[in-house]
Amino acid sequence: MDIPTAEIVCLGNELLIGVTTNTNATYLGDHLTKVGYEVRRVTCIRDDLVLASEFFQEVFERKPDLILVTGGLGPTYDDIQLEVLSKASGLDLIENKIALGQIQEFYRKKNAELTKDRRKMAFMPATSEVLKNYVGGAPGCYVIHLGIEIYCLPGVPTELKDIFSRHILPRLKDKNNGILYEKKFQIFQSIESQLAPFILSIKNKYSELYVKSHPAYKDKQGIIIHISGLGEKAELDVSNAIDELQELIRENIPDIKIESLVD
Amino acid sequence: MDIPTAEIVCLGNELLIGVTTNTNATYLGDHLTKVGYEVRRVTCIRDDLVLASEFFQEVFERKPDLILVTGGLGPTYDDIQLEVLSKASGLDLIENKIALGQIQEFYRKKNAELTKDRRKMAFMPATSEVLKNYVGGAPGCYVIHLGIEIYCLPGVPTELKDIFSRHILPRLKDKNNGILYEKKFQIFQSIESQLAPFILSIKNKYSELYVKSHPAYKDKQGIIIHISGLGEKAELDVSNAIDELQELIRENIPDIKIESLVD
Repeated sequence: MDIPTAEIVCLGNELLIGVTTNTNATYLGDHLTKVGYEVRRVTCIRDDLVLASEFFQEVFERKPDLILVTGGLGPTYDDIQLEVLSKASGLDLIENKIALGQIQEFYRKKNAELTKDRRKMAFMPATSEVLKNYVGGAPGCYVIHLGIEIYCLPGVPTELKDIFSRHILPRLKDKNNGILYEKKFQIFQSIESQLAPFILSIKNKYSELYVKSHPAYKDKQGIIIHISGLGEKAELDVSNAIDELQELIRENIPDIKIESLVD
Repeated sequence: MDIPTAEIVCLGNELLIGVTTNTNATYLGDHLTKVGYEVRRVTCIRDDLVLASEFFQEVFERKPDLILVTGGLGPTYDDIQLEVLSKASGLDLIENKIALGQIQEFYRKKNAELTKDRRKMAFMPATSEVLKNYVGGAPGCYVIHLGIEIYCLPGVPTELKDIFSRHILPRLKDKNNGILYEKKFQIFQSIESQLAPFILSIKNKYSELYVKSHPAYKDKQGIIIHISGLGEKAELDVSNAIDELQELIRENIPDIKIESLVD
Protein backbone atom coordinates (compact mmCIF):
# COMPACT_ATOMS: atom_id res chain seq x y z
CA MET A 1 0.00 0.00 0.00
CA ASP A 2 1.28 3.43 -0.91
CA ILE A 3 1.00 5.57 2.19
CA PRO A 4 0.50 9.29 1.46
CA THR A 5 3.13 11.57 3.01
CA ALA A 6 2.73 14.84 4.87
CA GLU A 7 4.94 17.57 6.28
CA ILE A 8 4.06 19.98 9.06
CA VAL A 9 5.72 23.40 8.85
CA CYS A 10 5.52 25.76 11.83
CA LEU A 11 6.45 29.39 11.37
CA GLY A 12 7.39 31.50 14.35
CA ASN A 13 10.52 32.64 16.17
CA GLU A 14 8.78 31.86 19.48
CA LEU A 15 9.07 28.14 18.63
CA LEU A 16 12.83 28.44 18.09
CA ILE A 17 13.76 30.53 21.10
CA GLY A 18 11.98 28.38 23.66
CA VAL A 19 9.08 30.74 24.40
CA THR A 20 6.38 28.40 23.05
CA THR A 21 6.24 24.59 23.05
CA ASN A 22 4.96 23.21 19.76
CA THR A 23 1.73 21.54 20.85
CA ASN A 24 0.21 22.26 17.41
CA ALA A 25 2.56 19.68 15.87
CA THR A 26 1.44 17.10 18.45
CA TYR A 27 -2.23 17.74 17.66
CA LEU A 28 -1.78 17.71 13.89
CA GLY A 29 0.64 14.74 13.88
CA ASP A 30 -1.81 12.68 15.90
CA HIS A 31 -4.73 13.40 13.56
CA LEU A 32 -2.77 13.04 10.32
CA THR A 33 -1.45 9.67 11.46
CA LYS A 34 -4.92 8.47 12.39
CA VAL A 35 -6.34 9.31 8.96
CA GLY A 36 -3.53 7.45 7.23
CA TYR A 37 -0.74 9.93 6.50
CA GLU A 38 2.93 9.29 7.17
CA VAL A 39 4.19 12.53 8.68
CA ARG A 40 7.73 12.72 7.32
CA ARG A 41 8.95 15.92 8.97
CA VAL A 42 7.93 18.64 11.38
CA THR A 43 9.99 21.78 10.83
CA CYS A 44 9.95 25.02 12.81
CA ILE A 45 11.36 28.00 10.94
CA ARG A 46 11.90 31.66 11.69
CA ASP A 47 9.70 34.55 10.56
CA ASP A 48 12.19 35.47 7.85
CA LEU A 49 10.89 35.94 4.31
CA VAL A 50 14.06 34.82 2.53
CA LEU A 51 14.96 31.83 4.74
CA ALA A 52 11.36 30.66 4.98
CA SER A 53 10.65 30.84 1.26
CA GLU A 54 13.87 28.98 0.47
CA PHE A 55 12.72 26.36 2.94
CA PHE A 56 9.33 25.98 1.22
CA GLN A 57 11.07 25.42 -2.11
CA GLU A 58 12.93 22.50 -0.50
CA VAL A 59 9.63 21.08 0.75
CA PHE A 60 8.06 21.41 -2.71
CA GLU A 61 11.01 19.46 -4.18
CA ARG A 62 10.35 16.59 -1.76
CA LYS A 63 6.79 16.44 -3.15
CA PRO A 64 4.83 15.35 -0.07
CA ASP A 65 1.12 14.77 -0.75
CA LEU A 66 0.12 17.25 1.93
CA ILE A 67 1.64 20.25 3.74
CA LEU A 68 0.10 21.79 6.85
CA VAL A 69 1.51 25.23 7.66
CA THR A 70 0.95 26.87 11.06
CA GLY A 71 1.56 30.38 12.38
CA GLY A 72 1.97 33.79 10.82
CA LEU A 73 -1.52 34.53 9.47
CA GLY A 74 -2.20 37.42 11.86
CA PRO A 75 -2.01 41.19 11.56
CA THR A 76 1.49 41.98 12.92
CA TYR A 77 4.57 42.77 10.84
CA ASP A 78 6.09 39.34 11.39
CA ASP A 79 2.96 37.44 10.31
CA ILE A 80 4.26 36.50 6.88
CA GLN A 81 3.06 32.96 6.17
CA LEU A 82 1.13 33.79 3.01
CA GLU A 83 3.79 36.18 1.72
CA VAL A 84 6.33 33.37 2.18
CA LEU A 85 4.10 30.88 0.32
CA SER A 86 3.52 33.35 -2.47
CA LYS A 87 7.25 34.00 -2.88
CA ALA A 88 8.10 30.29 -2.77
CA SER A 89 5.33 29.15 -5.15
CA GLY A 90 5.18 32.08 -7.55
CA LEU A 91 1.42 32.39 -6.90
CA ASP A 92 0.47 36.08 -6.70
CA LEU A 93 -0.73 37.43 -3.38
CA ILE A 94 -4.14 38.96 -4.07
CA GLU A 95 -6.91 40.36 -1.91
CA ASN A 96 -9.48 37.59 -1.50
CA LYS A 97 -13.03 39.01 -1.40
CA ILE A 98 -14.46 36.16 0.70
CA ALA A 99 -11.66 36.46 3.24
CA LEU A 100 -12.08 40.23 3.32
CA GLY A 101 -15.80 39.83 4.03
CA GLN A 102 -15.11 37.49 6.94
CA ILE A 103 -12.48 39.82 8.40
CA GLN A 104 -14.84 42.82 8.08
CA GLU A 105 -17.58 40.86 9.85
CA PHE A 106 -15.19 39.79 12.64
CA TYR A 107 -14.10 43.35 13.46
CA ARG A 108 -17.57 44.85 12.97
CA LYS A 109 -18.82 42.56 15.76
CA LYS A 110 -16.01 43.88 17.94
CA ASN A 111 -16.89 47.49 16.99
CA ALA A 112 -13.36 47.85 15.67
CA GLU A 113 -12.36 49.46 12.41
CA LEU A 114 -10.78 47.64 9.46
CA THR A 115 -7.20 48.94 9.66
CA LYS A 116 -4.53 48.29 7.03
CA ASP A 117 -2.96 45.64 9.28
CA ARG A 118 -6.25 43.78 9.64
CA ARG A 119 -7.01 44.04 5.93
CA LYS A 120 -3.59 42.46 5.20
CA MET A 121 -5.01 39.14 6.44
CA ALA A 122 -7.26 38.96 3.34
CA PHE A 123 -4.29 38.78 0.95
CA MET A 124 -3.90 35.14 -0.10
CA PRO A 125 -2.08 33.25 -2.85
CA ALA A 126 -4.12 33.26 -6.10
CA THR A 127 -6.51 30.25 -6.41
CA SER A 128 -6.77 29.91 -2.59
CA GLU A 129 -9.96 28.63 -1.02
CA VAL A 130 -10.81 30.45 2.22
CA LEU A 131 -11.27 28.41 5.43
CA LYS A 132 -13.40 30.47 7.80
CA ASN A 133 -11.99 31.15 11.26
CA TYR A 134 -14.85 31.05 13.81
CA VAL A 135 -12.55 31.82 16.76
CA GLY A 136 -10.20 34.60 15.67
CA GLY A 137 -9.68 37.21 12.98
CA ALA A 138 -7.38 35.50 10.48
CA PRO A 139 -9.02 33.07 8.02
CA GLY A 140 -7.11 29.96 6.97
CA CYS A 141 -6.75 28.91 3.37
CA TYR A 142 -6.24 25.95 1.08
CA VAL A 143 -4.23 25.96 -2.11
CA ILE A 144 -2.78 23.34 -4.46
CA HIS A 145 0.72 23.90 -5.84
CA LEU A 146 2.63 21.41 -8.02
CA GLY A 147 -0.04 18.85 -7.10
CA ILE A 148 0.69 19.28 -3.38
CA GLU A 149 -2.28 20.08 -1.13
CA ILE A 150 -1.38 22.95 1.20
CA TYR A 151 -3.48 24.01 4.19
CA CYS A 152 -2.58 27.30 5.89
CA LEU A 153 -3.48 27.61 9.57
CA PRO A 154 -3.05 30.24 12.27
CA GLY A 155 -0.67 29.51 15.16
CA VAL A 156 -3.05 30.19 18.05
CA PRO A 157 -4.00 26.65 19.16
CA THR A 158 -7.74 27.28 19.69
CA GLU A 159 -8.04 28.81 16.21
CA LEU A 160 -5.92 26.12 14.59
CA LYS A 161 -7.93 23.30 16.16
CA ASP A 162 -11.24 24.82 15.16
CA ILE A 163 -10.24 25.33 11.53
CA PHE A 164 -8.54 21.94 11.30
CA SER A 165 -11.38 19.92 12.83
CA ARG A 166 -14.13 21.84 11.04
CA HIS A 167 -12.73 22.26 7.51
CA ILE A 168 -9.74 19.96 7.01
CA LEU A 169 -10.12 16.73 8.99
CA PRO A 170 -13.43 15.72 7.32
CA ARG A 171 -11.82 16.10 3.88
CA LEU A 172 -8.78 14.05 4.86
CA LYS A 173 -11.07 11.33 6.25
CA ASP A 174 -13.02 11.28 2.98
CA LYS A 175 -9.84 10.38 1.12
CA ASN A 176 -9.94 6.96 2.77
CA ASN A 177 -6.20 6.62 2.98
CA GLY A 178 -6.78 3.76 5.36
CA ILE A 179 -7.45 3.50 9.04
CA LEU A 180 -4.68 3.32 11.62
CA TYR A 181 -4.96 0.46 14.09
CA GLU A 182 -3.02 0.88 17.29
CA LYS A 183 -2.66 -1.01 20.55
CA LYS A 184 -0.36 -0.30 23.44
CA PHE A 185 0.61 -1.79 26.78
CA GLN A 186 2.75 -0.92 29.75
CA ILE A 187 5.41 -3.14 31.30
CA PHE A 188 6.42 -2.59 34.90
CA GLN A 189 9.73 -3.45 36.57
CA SER A 190 11.71 -3.50 33.38
CA ILE A 191 13.90 -1.25 31.25
CA GLU A 192 14.11 -0.73 27.48
CA SER A 193 17.41 -2.52 27.03
CA GLN A 194 15.99 -5.70 28.61
CA LEU A 195 13.04 -5.67 26.19
CA ALA A 196 15.00 -4.68 23.08
CA PRO A 197 15.62 -8.20 21.70
CA PHE A 198 11.92 -9.21 22.01
CA ILE A 199 10.74 -5.99 20.36
CA LEU A 200 13.20 -6.48 17.50
CA SER A 201 12.06 -10.05 16.97
CA ILE A 202 8.41 -8.95 16.61
CA LYS A 203 9.42 -5.98 14.43
CA ASN A 204 11.29 -8.34 12.10
CA LYS A 205 8.29 -10.68 11.84
CA TYR A 206 5.75 -7.86 11.26
CA SER A 207 7.86 -5.52 9.17
CA GLU A 208 4.83 -3.53 7.96
CA LEU A 209 3.89 -2.53 11.50
CA TYR A 210 5.26 0.27 13.60
CA VAL A 211 6.64 -1.04 16.91
CA LYS A 212 7.92 1.51 19.38
CA SER A 213 8.94 1.50 23.04
CA HIS A 214 9.47 4.46 25.31
CA PRO A 215 9.67 5.10 29.06
CA ALA A 216 6.33 5.90 30.75
CA TYR A 217 7.01 9.58 31.41
CA LYS A 218 3.82 10.34 33.29
CA ASP A 219 3.93 7.88 36.17
CA LYS A 220 7.64 7.16 35.62
CA GLN A 221 7.01 3.44 35.91
CA GLY A 222 8.38 1.06 33.33
CA ILE A 223 8.07 1.08 29.58
CA ILE A 224 5.17 1.66 27.17
CA ILE A 225 5.07 -0.28 23.91
CA HIS A 226 2.96 0.82 20.91
CA ILE A 227 2.20 -1.36 17.93
CA SER A 228 0.33 0.17 15.02
CA GLY A 229 -0.31 -0.31 11.33
CA LEU A 230 -2.35 1.07 8.44
CA GLY A 231 -4.98 -0.63 6.32
CA GLU A 232 -7.44 -3.50 6.67
CA LYS A 233 -4.87 -6.23 7.20
CA ALA A 234 -3.28 -4.25 10.04
CA GLU A 235 -6.12 -4.85 12.50
CA LEU A 236 -5.42 -8.57 12.77
CA ASP A 237 -1.64 -8.12 12.52
CA VAL A 238 -1.56 -5.61 15.36
CA SER A 239 -3.56 -7.95 17.61
CA ASN A 240 -1.34 -10.91 16.81
CA ALA A 241 1.86 -8.93 17.24
CA ILE A 242 0.72 -7.64 20.63
CA ASP A 243 -0.17 -11.16 21.83
CA GLU A 244 3.08 -12.65 20.61
CA LEU A 245 5.23 -9.90 22.10
CA GLN A 246 3.56 -10.19 25.50
CA GLU A 247 4.01 -13.98 25.43
CA LEU A 248 7.68 -13.62 24.48
CA ILE A 249 8.26 -11.20 27.34
CA ARG A 250 6.42 -13.39 29.88
CA GLU A 251 8.39 -16.47 28.81
CA ASN A 252 11.71 -14.69 29.23
CA ILE A 253 11.05 -12.49 32.27
CA PRO A 254 9.14 -14.53 34.87
CA ASP A 255 6.64 -12.63 37.09
CA ILE A 256 6.72 -9.52 34.86
CA LYS A 257 3.70 -7.24 35.21
CA ILE A 258 2.00 -6.20 31.94
CA GLU A 259 -1.05 -3.96 31.60
CA SER A 260 -3.00 -3.12 28.44
CA LEU A 261 -3.56 0.60 27.81
CA VAL A 262 -6.34 2.48 26.08
CA ASP A 263 -6.28 6.14 24.97
CA MET B 1 27.86 41.51 15.11
CA ASP B 2 27.95 38.07 13.53
CA ILE B 3 25.54 35.90 15.44
CA PRO B 4 26.42 32.18 15.46
CA THR B 5 23.69 29.90 14.12
CA ALA B 6 22.34 26.62 15.45
CA GLU B 7 19.94 23.89 14.37
CA ILE B 8 18.10 21.47 16.63
CA VAL B 9 17.38 18.05 15.12
CA CYS B 10 15.00 15.70 16.93
CA LEU B 11 14.88 12.06 15.89
CA GLY B 12 11.86 9.96 16.74
CA ASN B 13 8.64 8.78 15.13
CA GLU B 14 6.84 9.57 18.40
CA LEU B 15 7.36 13.30 17.68
CA LEU B 16 5.76 12.98 14.23
CA ILE B 17 2.73 10.88 15.13
CA GLY B 18 1.57 13.03 18.02
CA VAL B 19 2.55 10.67 20.85
CA THR B 20 5.15 13.02 22.37
CA THR B 21 5.23 16.84 22.49
CA ASN B 22 8.68 18.22 21.75
CA THR B 23 9.54 19.87 25.06
CA ASN B 24 13.24 19.16 24.43
CA ALA B 25 13.25 21.74 21.64
CA THR B 26 11.70 24.32 23.98
CA TYR B 27 14.37 23.68 26.63
CA LEU B 28 17.28 23.72 24.18
CA GLY B 29 15.97 26.69 22.15
CA ASP B 30 15.61 28.76 25.31
CA HIS B 31 19.18 28.02 26.47
CA LEU B 32 20.80 28.40 23.05
CA THR B 33 19.12 31.77 22.58
CA LYS B 34 20.25 32.97 26.00
CA VAL B 35 23.91 32.14 25.29
CA GLY B 36 23.81 34.00 22.00
CA TYR B 37 22.89 31.53 19.25
CA GLU B 38 20.30 32.18 16.57
CA VAL B 39 18.34 28.92 16.33
CA ARG B 40 17.53 28.73 12.62
CA ARG B 41 15.49 25.54 12.50
CA VAL B 42 14.04 22.81 14.68
CA THR B 43 13.38 19.67 12.65
CA CYS B 44 11.74 16.43 13.77
CA ILE B 45 12.55 13.46 11.56
CA ARG B 46 11.62 9.78 11.52
CA ASP B 47 13.77 6.89 12.73
CA ASP B 48 14.68 5.99 9.16
CA LEU B 49 18.34 5.51 8.29
CA VAL B 50 18.09 6.65 4.67
CA LEU B 51 15.75 9.64 5.14
CA ALA B 52 17.53 10.81 8.29
CA SER B 53 21.04 10.62 6.84
CA GLU B 54 19.91 12.50 3.71
CA PHE B 55 18.48 15.12 6.04
CA PHE B 56 21.79 15.50 7.91
CA GLN B 57 23.61 16.06 4.66
CA GLU B 58 21.24 18.97 3.98
CA VAL B 59 22.01 20.40 7.43
CA PHE B 60 25.77 20.08 6.83
CA GLU B 61 25.37 22.03 3.57
CA ARG B 62 23.70 24.90 5.45
CA LYS B 63 26.82 25.05 7.67
CA PRO B 64 25.34 26.14 11.00
CA ASP B 65 27.93 26.68 13.72
CA LEU B 66 26.22 24.20 16.02
CA ILE B 67 23.89 21.21 15.73
CA LEU B 68 22.14 19.65 18.74
CA VAL B 69 20.69 16.22 18.00
CA THR B 70 18.16 14.57 20.33
CA GLY B 71 16.71 11.07 20.53
CA GLY B 72 17.79 7.65 19.33
CA LEU B 73 20.84 6.91 21.51
CA GLY B 74 19.21 4.02 23.38
CA PRO B 75 19.36 0.24 23.05
CA THR B 76 16.30 -0.53 20.89
CA TYR B 77 16.35 -1.33 17.17
CA ASP B 78 15.04 2.11 16.20
CA ASP B 79 17.68 4.01 18.22
CA ILE B 80 19.83 4.94 15.25
CA GLN B 81 21.09 8.48 15.87
CA LEU B 82 24.79 7.67 15.74
CA GLU B 83 24.41 5.27 12.82
CA VAL B 84 22.64 8.08 10.95
CA LEU B 85 25.40 10.57 11.78
CA SER B 86 28.06 8.10 10.73
CA LYS B 87 26.36 7.47 7.40
CA ALA B 88 25.81 11.18 6.74
CA SER B 89 29.31 12.32 7.75
CA GLY B 90 31.40 9.39 6.55
CA LEU B 91 32.93 9.08 10.05
CA ASP B 92 33.27 5.38 10.95
CA LEU B 93 31.16 4.03 13.78
CA ILE B 94 33.62 2.48 16.25
CA GLU B 95 33.32 1.07 19.76
CA ASN B 96 34.38 3.85 22.13
CA LYS B 97 36.27 2.42 25.13
CA ILE B 98 35.29 5.25 27.49
CA ALA B 99 31.61 4.95 26.54
CA LEU B 100 31.78 1.17 26.96
CA GLY B 101 33.24 1.57 30.45
CA GLN B 102 30.41 3.93 31.46
CA ILE B 103 27.76 1.57 30.07
CA GLN B 104 29.32 -1.42 31.85
CA GLU B 105 29.35 0.53 35.13
CA PHE B 106 25.70 1.61 34.66
CA TYR B 107 24.42 -1.96 34.20
CA ARG B 108 26.74 -3.46 36.84
CA LYS B 109 25.09 -1.18 39.41
CA LYS B 110 21.72 -2.52 38.25
CA ASN B 111 23.01 -6.10 38.47
CA ALA B 112 22.16 -6.46 34.79
CA GLU B 113 24.32 -8.07 32.15
CA LEU B 114 25.94 -6.25 29.22
CA THR B 115 23.79 -7.54 26.35
CA LYS B 116 24.53 -6.88 22.66
CA ASP B 117 21.77 -4.21 22.59
CA ARG B 118 23.29 -2.37 25.54
CA ARG B 119 26.80 -2.62 24.13
CA LYS B 120 25.54 -1.04 20.88
CA MET B 121 25.29 2.29 22.75
CA ALA B 122 29.12 2.48 22.93
CA PHE B 123 29.48 2.67 19.14
CA MET B 124 30.15 6.30 18.22
CA PRO B 125 31.46 8.21 15.21
CA ALA B 126 35.29 8.20 15.13
CA THR B 127 36.85 11.20 16.95
CA SER B 128 33.80 11.53 19.27
CA GLU B 129 34.24 12.81 22.79
CA VAL B 130 32.00 10.98 25.30
CA LEU B 131 29.56 13.01 27.44
CA LYS B 132 28.76 10.94 30.53
CA ASN B 133 25.08 10.26 31.25
CA TYR B 134 24.53 10.36 35.02
CA VAL B 135 20.80 9.58 34.74
CA GLY B 136 20.41 6.81 32.16
CA GLY B 137 22.39 4.19 30.24
CA ALA B 138 23.22 5.92 26.95
CA PRO B 139 26.16 8.36 26.98
CA GLY B 140 25.99 11.47 24.82
CA CYS B 141 28.81 12.52 22.53
CA TYR B 142 30.43 15.50 20.85
CA VAL B 143 32.01 15.49 17.42
CA ILE B 144 33.17 18.12 14.93
CA HIS B 145 32.41 17.58 11.25
CA LEU B 146 33.19 20.07 8.47
CA GLY B 147 33.88 22.63 11.19
CA ILE B 148 30.36 22.19 12.63
CA GLU B 149 30.11 21.37 16.34
CA ILE B 150 27.66 18.50 16.87
CA TYR B 151 26.33 17.43 20.26
CA CYS B 152 24.41 14.13 20.43
CA LEU B 153 21.84 13.83 23.21
CA PRO B 154 19.33 11.19 24.33
CA GLY B 155 15.62 11.92 23.93
CA VAL B 156 14.50 11.22 27.51
CA PRO B 157 14.10 14.76 28.92
CA THR B 158 15.71 14.11 32.33
CA GLU B 159 18.78 12.60 30.68
CA LEU B 160 18.97 15.30 28.01
CA LYS B 161 18.76 18.11 30.55
CA ASP B 162 21.42 16.58 32.78
CA ILE B 163 23.90 16.08 29.95
CA PHE B 164 23.17 19.49 28.41
CA SER B 165 23.44 21.49 31.62
CA ARG B 166 26.46 19.56 32.92
CA HIS B 167 28.65 19.16 29.82
CA ILE B 168 27.41 21.47 27.06
CA LEU B 169 25.97 24.70 28.47
CA PRO B 170 29.18 25.70 30.32
CA ARG B 171 31.17 25.35 27.07
CA LEU B 172 28.67 27.40 25.09
CA LYS B 173 28.74 30.11 27.76
CA ASP B 174 32.55 30.17 27.61
CA LYS B 175 32.37 31.09 23.94
CA ASN B 176 31.05 34.51 24.94
CA ASN B 177 28.80 34.85 21.95
CA GLY B 178 27.14 37.74 23.73
CA ILE B 179 24.41 37.97 26.32
CA LEU B 180 20.74 38.14 25.42
CA TYR B 181 18.82 41.00 26.98
CA GLU B 182 15.07 40.57 27.13
CA LYS B 183 12.14 42.45 28.60
CA LYS B 184 8.47 41.75 28.27
CA PHE B 185 5.14 43.21 29.28
CA GLN B 186 1.48 42.33 29.12
CA ILE B 187 -1.28 44.54 27.75
CA PHE B 188 -4.85 44.00 28.88
CA GLN B 189 -8.09 44.83 27.02
CA SER B 190 -6.47 44.88 23.61
CA ILE B 191 -5.89 42.64 20.62
CA GLU B 192 -2.85 42.14 18.40
CA SER B 193 -4.28 43.93 15.39
CA GLN B 194 -4.83 47.10 17.44
CA LEU B 195 -1.20 47.08 18.56
CA ALA B 196 0.33 46.09 15.22
CA PRO B 197 1.16 49.63 13.94
CA PHE B 198 2.91 50.64 17.20
CA ILE B 199 4.94 47.42 17.28
CA LEU B 200 5.99 47.91 13.66
CA SER B 201 7.06 51.48 14.31
CA ILE B 202 9.35 50.38 17.17
CA LYS B 203 10.62 47.41 15.15
CA ASN B 204 11.55 49.78 12.30
CA LYS B 205 13.41 52.13 14.66
CA TYR B 206 15.27 49.33 16.48
CA SER B 207 15.90 46.97 13.56
CA GLU B 208 18.57 44.99 15.44
CA LEU B 209 16.11 43.99 18.16
CA TYR B 210 13.61 41.17 18.15
CA VAL B 211 10.09 42.49 18.83
CA LYS B 212 7.32 39.91 19.13
CA SER B 213 3.71 39.93 20.28
CA HIS B 214 1.51 36.96 21.07
CA PRO B 215 -1.74 36.32 22.96
CA ALA B 216 -1.32 35.55 26.69
CA TYR B 217 -2.23 31.86 26.49
CA LYS B 218 -2.06 31.10 30.19
CA ASP B 219 -4.50 33.56 31.67
CA LYS B 220 -6.10 34.27 28.27
CA GLN B 221 -6.02 38.00 28.93
CA GLY B 222 -4.60 40.38 26.41
CA ILE B 223 -1.29 40.34 24.61
CA ILE B 224 2.30 39.76 25.69
CA ILE B 225 5.09 41.70 24.00
CA HIS B 226 8.75 40.61 24.09
CA ILE B 227 11.67 42.80 23.11
CA SER B 228 15.15 41.30 23.09
CA GLY B 229 18.58 41.78 21.60
CA LEU B 230 22.12 40.41 21.74
CA GLY B 231 25.33 42.12 22.77
CA GLU B 232 26.36 45.01 25.02
CA LYS B 233 24.50 47.73 23.14
CA ALA B 234 21.28 45.74 23.37
CA GLU B 235 20.75 46.32 27.09
CA LEU B 236 20.13 50.04 26.65
CA ASP B 237 18.28 49.59 23.34
CA VAL B 238 15.87 47.06 24.84
CA SER B 239 15.07 49.41 27.73
CA ASN B 240 14.53 52.37 25.43
CA ALA B 241 12.41 50.38 22.99
CA ILE B 242 10.20 49.06 25.81
CA ASP B 243 9.68 52.59 27.20
CA GLU B 244 8.91 54.09 23.81
CA LEU B 245 6.50 51.32 22.84
CA GLN B 246 4.57 51.61 26.10
CA GLU B 247 4.37 55.39 25.68
CA LEU B 248 3.16 55.03 22.10
CA ILE B 249 0.45 52.60 23.17
CA ARG B 250 -0.68 54.78 26.12
CA GLU B 251 -0.86 57.86 23.86
CA ASN B 252 -3.03 56.08 21.31
CA ILE B 253 -5.19 53.89 23.53
CA PRO B 254 -6.35 55.89 26.57
CA ASP B 255 -6.83 54.00 29.87
CA ILE B 256 -5.01 50.91 28.59
CA LYS B 257 -3.63 48.64 31.32
CA ILE B 258 0.03 47.60 30.95
CA GLU B 259 2.00 45.37 33.31
CA SER B 260 5.72 44.54 33.23
CA LEU B 261 6.54 40.84 33.35
CA VAL B 262 9.52 38.96 34.71
CA ASP B 263 10.42 35.32 34.05
